[in-house]
Order: sequence, then C-alpha cells, then structure tokens
Amino acid sequence: MTALRIVRVETADVRFPTSASLGGSDAMNPDPDYSAAYVVLHTADPELAGHGFTFTIGRGNDVVVRAVELLAEPLEGLAVRDLPDQMPQILRAMTGDSQIRWLGPEKGVMHLAAAAVLNALWDLWAKHARLPLWRLLCTLSPEQLVACLDFRHVRDVMTPDDALQLLRARRAGRDERQAALEGSGYPAYITSAGWLGYDDDRVRALVEQSLADGWDHFKMKVGISLDDDRRRAALIRELIGPHRRLMMDANQVWEVDEAIAWMAELARFDPYWIEEPTSPDDILGHARIARAVAPVLVATGEHVQNRIVFKQLFAARAIGVCQPDSCRLASVNENVLVYLLAERHGIPVCPHAGGVGLCELVQHLAAFDYIGISGSLDGRMVEYVDHLHEHFVHPVHVDRGAYVMPEAPGYSTEMVRESIEAYRYPEGQRWHERSPAPIG
Amino acid sequence: MTALRIVRVETADVRFPTSASLGGSDAMNPDPDYSAAYVVLHTADPELAGHGFTFTIGRGNDVVVRAVELLAEPLEGLAVRDLPDQMPQILRAMTGDSQIRWLGPEKGVMHLAAAAVLNALWDLWAKHARLPLWRLLCTLSPEQLVACLDFRHVRDVMTPDDALQLLRARRAGRDERQAALEGSGYPAYITSAGWLGYDDDRVRALVEQSLADGWDHFKMKVGISLDDDRRRAALIRELIGPHRRLMMDANQVWEVDEAIAWMAELARFDPYWIEEPTSPDDILGHARIARAVAPVLVATGEHVQNRIVFKQLFAARAIGVCQPDSCRLASVNENVLVYLLAERHGIPVCPHAGGVGLCELVQHLAAFDYIGISGSLDGRMVEYVDHLHEHFVHPVHVDRGAYVMPEAPGYSTEMVRESIEAYRYPEGQRWHERSPAPIG
Repeated sequence: MTALRIVRVETADVRFPTSASLGGSDAMNPDPDYSAAYVVLHTADPELAGHGFTFTIGRGNDVVVRAVELLAEPLEGLAVRDLPDQMPQILRAMTGDSQIRWLGPEKGVMHLAAAAVLNALWDLWAKHARLPLWRLLCTLSPEQLVACLDFRHVRDVMTPDDALQLLRARRAGRDERQAALEGSGYPAYITSAGWLGYDDDRVRALVEQSLADGWDHFKMKVGISLDDDRRRAALIRELIGPHRRLMMDANQVWEVDEAIAWMAELARFDPYWIEEPTSPDDILGHARIARAVAPVLVATGEHVQNRIVFKQLFAARAIGVCQPDSCRLASVNENVLVYLLAERHGIPVCPHAGGVGLCELVQHLAAFDYIGISGSLDGRMVEYVDHLHEHFVHPVHVDRGAYVMPEAPGYSTEMVRESIEAYRYPEGQRWHERSPAPIG
Repeated sequence: MTALRIVRVETADVRFPTSASLGGSDAMNPDPDYSAAYVVLHTADPELAGHGFTFTIGRGNDVVVRAVELLAEPLEGLAVRDLPDQMPQILRAMTGDSQIRWLGPEKGVMHLAAAAVLNALWDLWAKHARLPLWRLLCTLSPEQLVACLDFRHVRDVMTPDDALQLLRARRAGRDERQAALEGSGYPAYITSAGWLGYDDDRVRALVEQSLADGWDHFKMKVGISLDDDRRRAALIRELIGPHRRLMMDANQVWEVDEAIAWMAELARFDPYWIEEPTSPDDILGHARIARAVAPVLVATGEHVQNRIVFKQLFAARAIGVCQPDSCRLASVNENVLVYLLAERHGIPVCPHAGGVGLCELVQHLAAFDYIGISGSLDGRMVEYVDHLHEHFVHPVHVDRGAYVMPEAPGYSTEMVRESIEAYRYPEGQRWHERSPAPIG
C-alpha cells in the first residue's frame, strides 16, 4: 500500500479590513487589518489536509506568505505517517537552517512563517490521528513530546532530561484534570469591551453585556491619554465591582520610566496586570517596571520573539504573567517549551489570543498545560476576543466565561474556503468591494 | 526649476555562490552563499541614484527583496533636496509603521529591508551633497544628526538632549582626528585566514601572507571541535607571536555553560575576545559568560537585532566589545545611535564586516565614530575580509592593516552593474553556469 503523502502546498494572503471599524484599536495599533498568512498542505486524499497560518495585522502579510512558501516547499513528498518521527528534524530544518538563520535567527518574518507551516503540520498530524490537538498531545509519551522540542540556547535553564522529569511528574492526576476541563472548560477573560477606539457609551454597553454573559475578567487598552485612561478605568471598575479582575494593556507605547509613572496613576483602579508596558525586547526594562509596580503584575509575550527571550524574562523576574503568541513562536513545539520554562519558574501562562484564529489555537495549548505541564489553573486564563470566528470551520465555543474544549480532529486552524477566497488580498471580492468586514 | 525626484525603485536578488568554496565557513554557517537584497532609487537624473542593500547568506534573500519593495515603494516622488528634512519622518514610517511593526518590531526580515532602503537614501543624500558619507556626517550639526535618530525605548539610558550634549562635547579636536584618519587610515583586523573550512597549510600560508602585508590583529573561527581549535589556535599564535591580537569567533554555537567551559580550554592562547559565544538574544547569558571568561572580552553584535538589545548588553556589562552590523540595524540612523549608547557606557565599537559590501559601509561609520562620537581609537578596529570587493564601484582600500578613507561621494554601496546582472538569482549568467564565484 502506498503511503499517503503531502502532494501540494497552497498559500493565501488573507486580510480582513478591520481598520474600517475600530475593533482591535490600541495605543500602538490604530488601524490594524487583521490578516493571516495561510498555508494548506494538501495530501493525495482530498479529505485530509493540514491547515496552518500565522497572524499579522496587514501590510507585509505578503512578505510572510513568500517566506511560508520558501519553508513549506521541502515538505512536498512527506509521508503523513512519518510525521511523528520526522517532526524533530523538520523543526530543526525550518528554524535552524544555516542560511535562513541569518534572517533572524528565530525571529520576525521567518519565525512567523515557520509557525504557520508547523501549525499546518500539527493540524495534519492531529487530523490523521483523528484527535483534537490537545488530546493528541495527551497521547504522546514524554519522550515523544520532548523529541519535538528544540532546547538550543535554553539548556542552561532546562535540559531535555529536566523536561522529561517534569512531564513524568505531572502524569499523576491527569485523568481528573482532563475530566474537569471536559466538564467546566478553561477559564477565559475578555478584551472586546476595552478597545481604545470605542467611546464610553459603547464600553459601558459592552461591559454590561459581558457581565450578563458571565465574564469575570476584563481587559482595557491604555497608554495614549492618562485622563482618558483614568476615566475609562473608573467606568469599567465601577461596572465590574471591586472583586472582578481588571487588566490593562499598553501595547508597548511607553518608555520604562513613563510606564512606572503612568501606572502609579492607574494603581488606584486595582489593575491585576499591566500588559506590554514597553518594548518586548527590553528584558531589563520589564524587570525594573515589575519591581516598581508590584503588587500589580507585569505581563508580556505577544511580541516576544522566541524561547530565549522568555527564558530571560523568567530568570530576571521581569514578568509575573507569560503571554506567548501561538503564531509568533514556532508552533506547538516552541509553545510547549515556553510553558515548560514558565512552569520551572512558577510563572502562570495566560496566552495571547484574539487576532485571526488565535483563540482557536491557544485553547489546545492551554488545555494541555493544565493537563500535562502545570497541572494548575491558578492565575491562568485565556484571552478571548469575539472577532472573526465565523471564518473558521471549527470556531471556538465560549460559555459563561470559559472555553468549551474542542472535539473536532485537528488544531482548529482550518478556515472556511469561502472566507479564504472572499478576503484574499488584493483580489478577493471583499477587497474589491472595499466593504468593511463583519467583526462581531 | 522642477525639483529632482526619485522616479523609480529597482530591486535585485544578488547571490554569490560562495558555498562552492569554503570562504565564509564557520561553526554555525557551513555553506553560506553571500548575498545582497539590493535596491536602487533612481532619480530623473541618470547620473544620480541611491544604491543600498542588506547582506544575507543565501536562502530567503528573495523574501528580503520583497520586503524592500514594500518599504521602498512610498519613496517614489520624494524630492532629493527634501531628503535631509524628511529623513526623520521616513525613518519613523519605515520602522514604526503600526502594521509592519507586528512583523518585528524592528527585527528580522523587515528590519534588514529597512536597512537596505535607508542605506540607499543615505547614499543618495551623500552623492547629492558630493561627499563621502563619513564627511557628510561630519557636516551635520548635532541637532540635524539627532533628529535622524529614533530614541524610542532607549530613553531610559539616553535622551535626545543627552545625545546632543555628547556630540557637542566631541566637537573639540575634530579637525585633528580627521587629519589623523586622512593620514593613517582606520585600524583593521583580518578574518580571512581563520575560516573553519581551511586546512592547516592554507591557514599557515594566509597568516604568513597577512603578516607580510602588515596585519597585527587576527581572528579565527572556533566551536566545532575543541581539539581542532587548540591545534589551530596554537598554530596561529605561534605564527603571529605573543604580542599581536588573536580574536576567536564561535558564531553562536554554544550553550552558556559550554561557552564558559570551552573558553577555559582556549584561554592559554591569550585570546583578546570571544565573539558570539552564544545566542545573540541571550543578554543575561552573555553577562554570565563575560564574568566567567574575564579578562578575555566578550564581543557580539552582528546578529543583535536593534538598539534596544544593545542598550541592555551595555547595561548588563554583558559585552566588552560592540560589533553592530551596518545592514542589520536600520542604517546610519540606528548605527549612530548604537555608537552613542556604546560611548555612554565606555564600550568600544568594532563593527562587523565582511559579507557582501559590509567593509565598504562600516569604514564610514567607524570614521565618524572616531571624529564625532568616541574620539578614540583605543580598542577599536574594523573587521576586514578580502571577499567580493571587486563587485563594488568604489571598493575599500586597505593598506598595512588600515582602511584608507574613501573619498568618492556616497556610502560606497554601489555595486558594479555587470555583477548585479551576472549574479542575479536565479536567472543571472553565473547561476546559469553554476560556476563558483571568485572570492579572493
């Protein structure tokens, strides 16, 4: 019998004209067009294809698509059944290629592209195994999983043996945790109410609706005007009461000293964390901010380029909450390693989501963290933004402030074919019409 | 009279098949094809065009070219005479564009592309002023120069006012330093002898030739085999004697603890510095290595993504020598700021060179550092590699171990037209023939 192989790589530059509304607006990003550099690994079986993407916010999405093509091309001919055994070599070829390393290493466009391609491979693997990705991860032995991780340049903090020990130690109680997730879902928080572009009436209406829907954790954008931030924080805090969590997100607009001064002014609204107070590259700056704003936690991660920077953010006690982006790190492989590094330092992971399809992906990673890595929900919640889910074949399902565990085989990465075609940039019908995308 | 404007952007994917020889081989990069993502900003005057590029080592150069096209396109229509006034806004639009920031920010492919385009703009500015770039920089007032720098996320260490004060203080003695450079050139060191792919006889012959040519500073590649490194270090140290400097370069292959252990074994060959001992992203790791290997200096920079990481490498005393890459940082703008930050911390800058055309560029930056920023040559030297200079219209001229100051107007970025066409990938004649490039 002939092995089923990857026979064709398809890519698409998919962009949603979200800048036409102000959904997604924050202090750094006034007019994002939420986009996906999308890739499909077609097999000879028309019923089986791996879908992957990385998220961008518009311009340059075509550059990422070109990088995806470069990285995906060598996968043509790969037998699907060999994927579990080949994953370690594929990862290393994709992120460690000596010529491509010059363009990073492991950061920026090439790393985003590696994420897209590896996401498609994990989707393919999980679909072939007829399991949702989080369940697939639970079926892997610690040895299989560790073989899929790249410990280069983090071995001073964690070796493969350290990771094996941690994973083995967490096997106790897995069944109970899995059952708990199946019953109650994974806790979430909501960002949709607090975009900077919304006026007070809209914020009030959205917060009230979210409270009615059962949400307990809210995030607001800050950083452009201190007066506005005070007014909006007072409004939201009043609406949600003293006991629900209010998180603040500055999206990197501040200098280090500015962040410290600004948060001194907002501390009276009892924020749980301040997210992205400054450059994601500034480990020492985050450490200084963290010391100054305590007990408010410093959170960052959606722009943290790779495991090596996370390693240092943990070691320097620069963050109290870790927020990796599932599509900026090199897919499941690097995300799992960052979860392991975070667990070693006792720092909770609350993954970045929103964008296009990020909620769909991170639910799998968070579930596996709870079942197989941290074993805890303390201080952990997954971001939820109510945008663009209708474009996915298996959209997330959120109920009473929690993600309901996905059961469809795969990594929930597959976009509806009609959406891919309609929003293909620049030739898709929706761009031709220049009509705003539905974002609610 | 109509203003002279940029009327057309031309790009080229230029690759030299250097992997056919072993020039450029090191522990991380066994088979580089030295390449340039090349851009020409044509004006209506056929005699005046700005040439720029960024350096890569092969695969993915096309991705960078696509990014260059994206960033350069808005420059069509710019009046050349407005360039001095427009430079600050152009820089900010190119590296701070809110949608493009998502692909970095300020790192990887998009930042390399920004370097290429900005290099072309500086070349155009200098040609229009009929000055070599280093002399153009000397003509700018501190205010003009500071306006061209982006202090975002480094203001905790240096504000524009701090930079102004530093530049003003260095105006004393400028004429003498300029005259000294014009007389004696800028000191250099040579890497060409120590590539890992060369056998001992070839190393011996190259070192002996270099000594005869007047070189006093030598760099060797290390990191694959400790036995080989010991043998080659002993050979080179014997040939150059105890008083000339021997630098070692591991090109990121080590883990932190491995670097410390390896260098303990090589310390007896009295290396002046160990370059790129580990990941360029690992600020805290470099700091630990620096403490362990002292008095050997730790050097890094050719892969350091931006000013924010340099800021931390300085603050953490993680490096004793700073080696920025002229084409990885955002051109003259960010390079000058890194020189200023280094000067503030008293750390000498020895810029990375070699590759394609990097020697041509860094001679301008180093000259301006001596004249206008650090005012010192102590511990400072520019890398020199004798590759591929014949492809440039104004190749570097090195004499008795020193760069002779360039006098042709521009940034020395312009490649010979015949070389661009012959090495254009994949359609150029040299790729069609698959003949190895001349590299000596």
